[in-house]
Amino acid sequence: MSAVIGPHNPGELFLGEIREQPEALRRLLEQEAEFDAVTKVLRERRPSVVRLVGHGSSDAAASYGVYAFGLLPGWTAMRDSISLTVYYDAKLDLSDSAVIALSQSGETPDVVEYVKRAREKGAFTVAITNGTESSLADVADATLGLAAGPERAVAASKTFLNTLAAMVWVAGGAAGRGREIAEGLRRVSEKLAGSLGRLEQAVSNVAMAFAYVGRMYVIGRGIEFGTAREVALKLTETCRVAAEPLTATDLAHGPIAALDSMFPVWTIASRDESLPAVLDAAARVIEAGATVVASGNAATEIKGAAHVLLVPEAPLPILSPLLSVVPGQLFAGALAHAKGLDADYPVGLSKVTRAR
Amino acid sequence: MSAVIGPHNPGELFLGEIREQPEALRRLLEQEAEFDAVTKVLRERRPSVVRLVGHGSSDAAASYGVYAFGLLPGWTAMRDSISLTVYYDAKLDLSDSAVIALSQSGETPDVVEYVKRAREKGAFTVAITNGTESSLADVADATLGLAAGPERAVAASKTFLNTLAAMVWVAGGAAGRGREIAEGLRRVSEKLAGSLGRLEQAVSNVAMAFAYVGRMYVIGRGIEFGTAREVALKLTETCRVAAEPLTATDLAHGPIAALDSMFPVWTIASRDESLPAVLDAAARVIEAGATVVASGNAATEIKGAAHVLLVPEAPLPILSPLLSVVPGQLFAGALAHAKGLDADYPVGLSKVTRAR
Repeated sequence: MSAVIGPHNPGELFLGEIREQPEALRRLLEQEAEFDAVTKVLRERRPSVVRLVGHGSSDAAASYGVYAFGLLPGWTAMRDSISLTVYYDAKLDLSDSAVIALSQSGETPDVVEYVKRAREKGAFTVAITNGTESSLADVADATLGLAAGPERAVAASKTFLNTLAAMVWVAGGAAGRGREIAEGLRRVSEKLAGSLGRLEQAVSNVAMAFAYVGRMYVIGRGIEFGTAREVALKLTETCRVAAEPLTATDLAHGPIAALDSMFPVWTIASRDESLPAVLDAAARVIEAGATVVASGNAATEIKGAAHVLLVPEAPLPILSPLLSVVPGQLFAGALAHAKGLDADYPVGLSKVTRAR
Repeated sequence: MSAVIGPHNPGELFLGEIREQPEALRRLLEQEAEFDAVTKVLRERRPSVVRLVGHGSSDAAASYGVYAFGLLPGWTAMRDSISLTVYYDAKLDLSDSAVIALSQSGETPDVVEYVKRAREKGAFTVAITNGTESSLADVADATLGLAAGPERAVAASKTFLNTLAAMVWVAGGAAGRGREIAEGLRRVSEKLAGSLGRLEQAVSNVAMAFAYVGRMYVIGRGIEFGTAREVALKLTETCRVAAEPLTATDLAHGPIAALDSMFPVWTIASRDESLPAVLDAAARVIEAGATVVASGNAATEIKGAAHVLLVPEAPLPILSPLLSVVPGQLFAGALAHAKGLDADYPVGLSKVTRAR
């Protein structure tokens, strides 16, 4: 780790780590033996349920995991309630479950406690963490390292991307498609490297227009709902914007009533089976007079968007979110700058959240 | 149904239906034979997973269902992804699953489609709906009526309360405790009837102070997270406030950074195992300078709250949410009035949401 020379430039850590993502992703892919070993156990056990647990960005990544497991091996995965096991001590039968615990630091207290209890109840527990020497790694049956390198900005970026990659690689392995997914991830890394500069430029122009915005919605559906959750979280923590993630359908069930011209909506549109629902939702948003920012590899399909941030198409649709999240990360950094905030050290947050 | 005589008084339908809840709940309880019959099948099948599906208020109710099933029979219940089955056609094994589909109207298109497909894949499917002659009732193996009577305000109130009641009654039945839960629900109905007048008074004083608020957080954890989701939805749809529901822990993982004195936080504190986490979160919120409204049966435990809306203690902790939601419903109605909005007919919404 290099020493920081001179005064801190607000947001430089966060931006540096966003730019480092292609390289971080390549590092993850060097662990083929470790991933194969975990995948082998999962295939033998064939869990009836995969329980995903995490908070913050890790919980956003878990939303993606539901789709990675559902679409690749066809397994039921759920974002499990941590409180049911940790606080209420519910008498659930976990003997037929696998647990995938997500924590960048590996020190989130109730995630560690959840894994401890789930393992006692017979679940096979896997930690996916950047903290391979952590409390979480200590309690889990198996640990897969994110290999993202030290992340110094409080807001996660490269650890989020590598968490998605680790989960889809495990899910692919469970489906007997581990090699294909790894190869796809390698291509994603190249596409990321090839598009980051252009996106950074495009995003900084958009951010200026949003300097006085206090609330936003972020819309995604299906495989992109986790991306929407992560982008909303970035905007909230680095820009102090009340940004709420919604599925395209959630929007129609209430929140559409709150929209007006001062209420921008960030929309993630990717080419897959959920695209028609997202396009419908975007059309309603525009009809309600709100400003739409269109991102994703199908961003140009949204008619009437005020801003379009197109990302490259992924080699497989299930890998789209690894590219779709990037404009959101860059936008959060640029908007924090436009608002005069330091994206590296948000007020009231610390890197390891010990809250229960 | 009585005819409306004279001009419409904004918000009168919504308020009338909130007041009608004790009676609506008693009507639900008249269906013992119907509930027993469904419960019997569930106990025989002992599903490995209970899949809860719904949108909007029904999805908020599903969050409660996760705890009702987890804590009473000790069964794993999840808010299932509708899009995985309906849009992506994922090859999930549902033969060992039960589905509980929630839709007030029984006409939500993708919930109907989900149930159709899940039944074809071997799941036992139960509809809980106010629309007992609906498309959803047609496709499900069994239907339980909400018996809430016609709900005319677009924003749900009595159908939400009866959905919670129906779910906890089924979960209690699955645990062999159906009679005890029904008796508890009867007592809840009485306590509701005895406290509505006082709460209505208390809430209207609080609402005046929030007339210019544009964003809020609503915090609950465990059994009260569904309540937080429902209260946030009411505020969003009837008051055009960007109100986001968060667990006490979510708050610490990012959103706490966005708080300031113009950002009120509605907190639901009930006496149960998750109370310490909620009190911790409320203390952080107050430290961040935000205004806290404390509700729930442990509202007085939140030190430094600007407003306290205490509800009666439920006969069993698992029934607390049926009382905790009421101040939120009343507040949404009163705040809409203070903002000059008509809570009965929110802009851009209709009673049956056909969005996909």
